[in-house]
Amino acid sequence: MKTNLPLDADRLWADVMALAQITDPERPYTRRSFSALFLEGRAFLARRFAEAGLTTRIDAAGNLIGRIDGADPAIGVIAIGSHSDTVPSGGRFDGIAGVAAGLEVVRALRDSGAQLDHTIEVIDFLAEEPSEYGLSCVGSRGMTGSLNDRMLDLTDPTGEKLRDALRRVGGEPDRLSQAKRDDIRAFLELHIEQGVVLESQSLDVGIVTSIVGIRRLEIVFQGEADHAGTMPMALRRDALVAAAHTVSSVREAADGLAAEGPDYFVATVGILTVEPSASNIVPGRCRLVIDARTTNPALTKRFVEIIGRESSAHATSAKVTRASFADLSDGAPVACDPALRAALRTGAHDLGLGETDLPSGAGHDAAFMSRICPSAMVFVPCRAGKSHAPEEWADREAIAAGAAVIYQAVKALDQSLPRKARSGAA
Amino acid sequence: MKTNLPLDADRLWADVMALAQITDPERPYTRRSFSALFLEGRAFLARRFAEAGLTTRIDAAGNLIGRIDGADPAIGVIAIGSHSDTVPSGGRFDGIAGVAAGLEVVRALRDSGAQLDHTIEVIDFLAEEPSEYGLSCVGSRGMTGSLNDRMLDLTDPTGEKLRDALRRVGGEPDRLSQAKRDDIRAFLELHIEQGVVLESQSLDVGIVTSIVGIRRLEIVFQGEADHAGTMPMALRRDALVAAAHTVSSVREAADGLAAEGPDYFVATVGILTVEPSASNIVPGRCRLVIDARTTNPALTKRFVEIIGRESSAHATSAKVTRASFADLSDGAPVACDPALRAALRTGAHDLGLGETDLPSGAGHDAAFMSRICPSAMVFVPCRAGKSHAPEEWADREAIAAGAAVIYQAVKALDQSLPRKARSGAA
Repeated sequence: MKTNLPLDADRLWADVMALAQITDPERPYTRRSFSALFLEGRAFLARRFAEAGLTTRIDAAGNLIGRIDGADPAIGVIAIGSHSDTVPSGGRFDGIAGVAAGLEVVRALRDSGAQLDHTIEVIDFLAEEPSEYGLSCVGSRGMTGSLNDRMLDLTDPTGEKLRDALRRVGGEPDRLSQAKRDDIRAFLELHIEQGVVLESQSLDVGIVTSIVGIRRLEIVFQGEADHAGTMPMALRRDALVAAAHTVSSVREAADGLAAEGPDYFVATVGILTVEPSASNIVPGRCRLVIDARTTNPALTKRFVEIIGRESSAHATSAKVTRASFADLSDGAPVACDPALRAALRTGAHDLGLGETDLPSGAGHDAAFMSRICPSAMVFVPCRAGKSHAPEEWADREAIAAGAAVIYQAVKALDQSLPRKARSGAA
Repeated sequence: MKTNLPLDADRLWADVMALAQITDPERPYTRRSFSALFLEGRAFLARRFAEAGLTTRIDAAGNLIGRIDGADPAIGVIAIGSHSDTVPSGGRFDGIAGVAAGLEVVRALRDSGAQLDHTIEVIDFLAEEPSEYGLSCVGSRGMTGSLNDRMLDLTDPTGEKLRDALRRVGGEPDRLSQAKRDDIRAFLELHIEQGVVLESQSLDVGIVTSIVGIRRLEIVFQGEADHAGTMPMALRRDALVAAAHTVSSVREAADGLAAEGPDYFVATVGILTVEPSASNIVPGRCRLVIDARTTNPALTKRFVEIIGRESSAHATSAKVTRASFADLSDGAPVACDPALRAALRTGAHDLGLGETDLPSGAGHDAAFMSRICPSAMVFVPCRAGKSHAPEEWADREAIAAGAAVIYQAVKALDQSLPRKARSGAA
């Protein structure tokens, strides 16, 4: 890796580490959206934004936005950002690294004396992680017109509505349309990979090709909860037998589709519940939740066909009923913008960094942002792929390298982006 | 079925139905051992015992015993019984039918003017069902010298010790040795089958050959709880995949061993837990509990060998660790006494009833009683094999037929049992 980067790796690292200190001390690293700690983290960020010369504000969707006007404000905005909230007992890098990287890019541009034509914004999106209100990506939904009244009426376990929580953090749920943007020309997000591709190949950065679509399926098998001692094997209607065969089918089908290449495909049975769950009772009912993710919806379509067929056969052979086979959710994959990806790749090459294309298996704010503007992501390696856990780790140099790639891309995009509305006639 | 039985089917049925009314009204049919309702049920039984001419007492182990002396008290006791406690939301017949049958046999003997040489006892064993103290068959353990200090120190969720609960129902935990019996020459128990063999073959009674031994195995698979979106299929260490394969192995092995015949074998995975149990996380840890029951321990030995080998292979192929493979409990099967079984069979034939030999897949007080005396059981058919549920059902005529078989057997055994200590020299 080239260490002579066009930014200050230590200054960037110091911001990440400072935010890490703003955590629930009982369960590091926890800074849940809408909490007092979250607001403390944002106050720190707002100070650092201001020190960097950014004008800061909270938009109607609760996003913290730092802005520095370009030479030609009318041609629009290049935005860089991610999120500063964490999952409970999460890590120090997921989200935070992307916000700090955006801030460092602005400082490095300032230090270099560069004057861009585009306005630059650094965005800390509100509540990217699943919040206590049962919704993720609250801020990027709001900025892209994807936050509706039904979502705002969601409540947390105390009964507070999301719309009221949004007010608490400075948002304006009754004026959400003001948060919807049409002036952003490009959005770039740095994030830790949360996987092992970059680490295992000793690469510096990943240029994200697309963000997976996630389909969640629920299957319920209904059998008969008989006495485990007195019901002969041949007469049983054991729901767990059908469920276990289905887990095996999911793994086998996913292995096959993933091995086909080049498209990304993973599928997981993360939830399997057994009722009544007693050692001396034959399982009467089992529920599975399958999470299937892909960059190519045709693969998920084939997967669901296979699992539909095989789970039905497993139910028949176990003499149970497949009481449910239903979608819980179905999101389409999002392709990252080719021009932005090219700018990132060129940036990496110019810096002498090793890069590769790779899909994102996790969801990100960039997936929502792609609804309103060209968007792309840079992944940086993290240790053993661990994320959403205190041991989550990314090296100082790795984060700096990813930020430097964005720095290069911003400078290039400032010149190369199509200018739909050139200002002035002078 | 012959309906001209040597006892009063209606009188027997009335006792069963009267006990059924003594239930928690919120969740019929519930009469938990040690509860006020349980004591109310026993008060009813004690009255009925007394009306039938039985002398009643509570022994040191908390069993309710009704006794009528024989012509030759020194030759010992023929005992008949079961239990009057229920599981939560249980049925009206499991246990109760056996106590009421014993009582009706005594009344029918009295009505017929028969004078037996042996003393007859009708026993309502304490807490046959798993109690809030985590122990089943409390009374029959006590009567057979199988209730130890460690068990008496078990506590319920409120912290009360079993020894104190035993005092509350009239037992004497400090004088348990007085409950241990050496004067019982035969024990007979009527119980609903809790299975479908008799019903499916339209038979009146089952003569139990043996009561299964139960072996409980715990298997824990330890994998890695990775992000379900970012961890490629080929790198996963999914504990649920190993667990699911093992569930399939258990079913396949059990089907094979059960089909070999003539020995009884069943095995069940009734508990399977997944951690952390989130749709977007690869299962990191799974725990299974396997319940294997047989009349022939050699089959369970083979079963455990197969599951040991295959679960190890499943762990290897899923790249997880088999962190535990351990016995939770291991009880030997109990053979019913051949002479008592012959007396029951002859009784059924004499009454023109259809009978078959069959094993008991469930545990019963008779399994403990066999430690101190020849013991045997009569099963009567129950609807669809349902038990431990409000819909548990046995017909009036079915219970009466089973009781009549015991009536016949008691009369025959009174004459045929070996008389170890003939009394008097007159």
